[in-house]
Amino acid sequence: MLRSWVGERHHTTVSVMTDLQNASVTILGSTGSIGTQALDILERSGKGQALRWITCNTKWQLLAEQVEKFSPNGVAIREEQAWREFKDAMPRYTGRVLCGDDGICEAAADSENRVVLSAMVGFSGVLPTLAAIKAGHTIGLANKESLVSAGSILMPAVDTYGAKLLAVDSEHSAILQCVVGERRDDLEKVIITASGGPFRTYTHEQLQHVTAAQALKHPNWDMGAKITIDSATLMNKGFEVIEAFWLFGLRADQIDVVIHPQSIIHSMVQFVDGSVKAQMGVPTMLVPIQYALTYPRRTPLDIPRMDLASMGQLTFESPDTERFPCLALAYEVMRQGGTSGAAVNAANEIAVEAFLQGRLRFRDIPATIEHVLHHMEHVTHPSLADIVSIDAESRRIAHDFAHRHQL
Amino acid sequence: MLRSWVGERHHTTVSVMTDLQNASVTILGSTGSIGTQALDILERSGKGQALRWITCNTKWQLLAEQVEKFSPNGVAIREEQAWREFKDAMPRYTGRVLCGDDGICEAAADSENRVVLSAMVGFSGVLPTLAAIKAGHTIGLANKESLVSAGSILMPAVDTYGAKLLAVDSEHSAILQCVVGERRDDLEKVIITASGGPFRTYTHEQLQHVTAAQALKHPNWDMGAKITIDSATLMNKGFEVIEAFWLFGLRADQIDVVIHPQSIIHSMVQFVDGSVKAQMGVPTMLVPIQYALTYPRRTPLDIPRMDLASMGQLTFESPDTERFPCLALAYEVMRQGGTSGAAVNAANEIAVEAFLQGRLRFRDIPATIEHVLHHMEHVTHPSLADIVSIDAESRRIAHDFAHRHQL
Repeated sequence: MLRSWVGERHHTTVSVMTDLQNASVTILGSTGSIGTQALDILERSGKGQALRWITCNTKWQLLAEQVEKFSPNGVAIREEQAWREFKDAMPRYTGRVLCGDDGICEAAADSENRVVLSAMVGFSGVLPTLAAIKAGHTIGLANKESLVSAGSILMPAVDTYGAKLLAVDSEHSAILQCVVGERRDDLEKVIITASGGPFRTYTHEQLQHVTAAQALKHPNWDMGAKITIDSATLMNKGFEVIEAFWLFGLRADQIDVVIHPQSIIHSMVQFVDGSVKAQMGVPTMLVPIQYALTYPRRTPLDIPRMDLASMGQLTFESPDTERFPCLALAYEVMRQGGTSGAAVNAANEIAVEAFLQGRLRFRDIPATIEHVLHHMEHVTHPSLADIVSIDAESRRIAHDFAHRHQL
Repeated sequence: MLRSWVGERHHTTVSVMTDLQNASVTILGSTGSIGTQALDILERSGKGQALRWITCNTKWQLLAEQVEKFSPNGVAIREEQAWREFKDAMPRYTGRVLCGDDGICEAAADSENRVVLSAMVGFSGVLPTLAAIKAGHTIGLANKESLVSAGSILMPAVDTYGAKLLAVDSEHSAILQCVVGERRDDLEKVIITASGGPFRTYTHEQLQHVTAAQALKHPNWDMGAKITIDSATLMNKGFEVIEAFWLFGLRADQIDVVIHPQSIIHSMVQFVDGSVKAQMGVPTMLVPIQYALTYPRRTPLDIPRMDLASMGQLTFESPDTERFPCLALAYEVMRQGGTSGAAVNAANEIAVEAFLQGRLRFRDIPATIEHVLHHMEHVTHPSLADIVSIDAESRRIAHDFAHRHQL
């Protein structure tokens, strides 16, 4: 393995940004949970004016507010109707206003970008992330679905184009923080922590009746709706396992998951000498977002400090893949490879959407994914076109299944 | 602060030994707990033959066995009687057999040394450690008393002679493992963990009656007698605080102690962004000893791996300096500076010896140290001669005090 820890093989440079001084940041998905927190960090550091592009899917009003506040060089809006409304509402905005996936990809690939934060939700992040990779950019990747669906496309492209991928999940940021200064060969395995979600202690019976409102109350993390449901099913943890597989070039048997309800240890790395390093702190996405922007340096961040003596204890247990089968499905994806990740991700997006709309039971989320994984055509060495096609077809099968099991 | 993490200012080299291949190791104190474990590591790695010097205080028989097994280039024995007996018993040994502090210092300074492991007990380690520093060597420092007594002499010498100091304590090794790849300016504070020792839950009343036999039963670590008593009084933790102060160039307010009875987290580093890194593992000195030999690389070590899910929980509490005043004395040493560390270390050595011999109560260990600290002459900017003189005088005062409070 010649690849360094930030998913790039050809460069030995370790500095992404010496600090936020020279930030020329593009945020794909600036109206989402990660995007708004990234803007918060840039604002706190007084560098909000260094914003290059911000993009959104439909929330043009919030994007317009961000434009007023941060004056980015340009914006891109995915949905055409939202794009029209933004243009009508912001006649005096002098920056470029791009539209659609092409517009977002153009923003992602802009050669003036210093760091691209890829924080779109779901499969929609694949093409813009690939565009940023092909431009050789440094990318803070908050869109784990890109790697789950298209890791076999994205990671070779990272090599080819000399890009850098820095994960913005708290877990993968923890792993990265634990491996700086270490040799790749000295890593034995990673131990990804999981809060266990809001239903960690629920019985099979109780899990039958949980509602979207219950699932949206995550005990530790304040996140978007989709990822919060993914946390409740442990599909999010499964995706993180797959993300670690791609990002750090690990084997499936080098990735363990341990339930840690307090979410203080964000993940761990075990080395060949039996030594384990953990990254810890109060649960906040501000740390991993900022770390991706300042890696491998740090800048002061005014957040509460961890106080273990006050907490008293940290607890740990093994994950239960009987009650939470989505985690086991992630390991199946790593075994199968090919398009299985794209199929699972697409099925999950459809199932979660149906659950959030009250059309599907909680237990039928994993059932939908499993059905799609086992009934979908499998391509072992897929092209990007294969993945896009499997994504679409998986959604169709998932829709059918969800419809048949509709409440 | 231009100093790197291994206590050297002039070199930016990070590699001590690429592995154990080219080991030419000298072990000062090879018959002690750390020394024998270091030999175990060299034997496991098949590199026991690369031993340059081994030294002991009085245990010449064990040293003779080590000579038979590892064929070092030479030995040094501190006590003259033991040196005579070794020579009589080993007439066919062709290596050099040196005697006394001078002999040990000669071994420490040998220009052929690749790494010097300084694992003598107490103040006796100061001069040999200084000799190794003046030779510009890389030193694995297991003798924390050297820094407690003479940090103001040793650390400037490390700079002057371009030496490297790598701590072999599990706590300081943990800190070093957490800061590799990090910038010095990004460190906010260190959090040193303490098991709390065998009397962690004892009341004031119970502490009056504890015996040496009880104190020697440490819950987690199998160590030498002196350090085990130091662990029971928390004086050891106080020494580690002072050691961190010198080794990592910290202020006293940058060093916290948290009680963690399971000894799984060996210490932590908090950074300016609120992120905390911890080094963890099953309690064994093999990891920090080997890490000092292979830093910043690692080599495989066949020890049990940590299993948090099986353990279930890690607990934490604040240290109680009412019941364990030795920890507070350490902070007083950092405030006073000068010769206060030498006075406290000397008083502690005398008090522990008296306690081990059943001549002094457990509670009178801190009383002896406090008495010496408050009655000893204080030199603000001491020479080495001042420190040697304060050490001797402190021992005299401590003896008198211990005698007056004799059981």
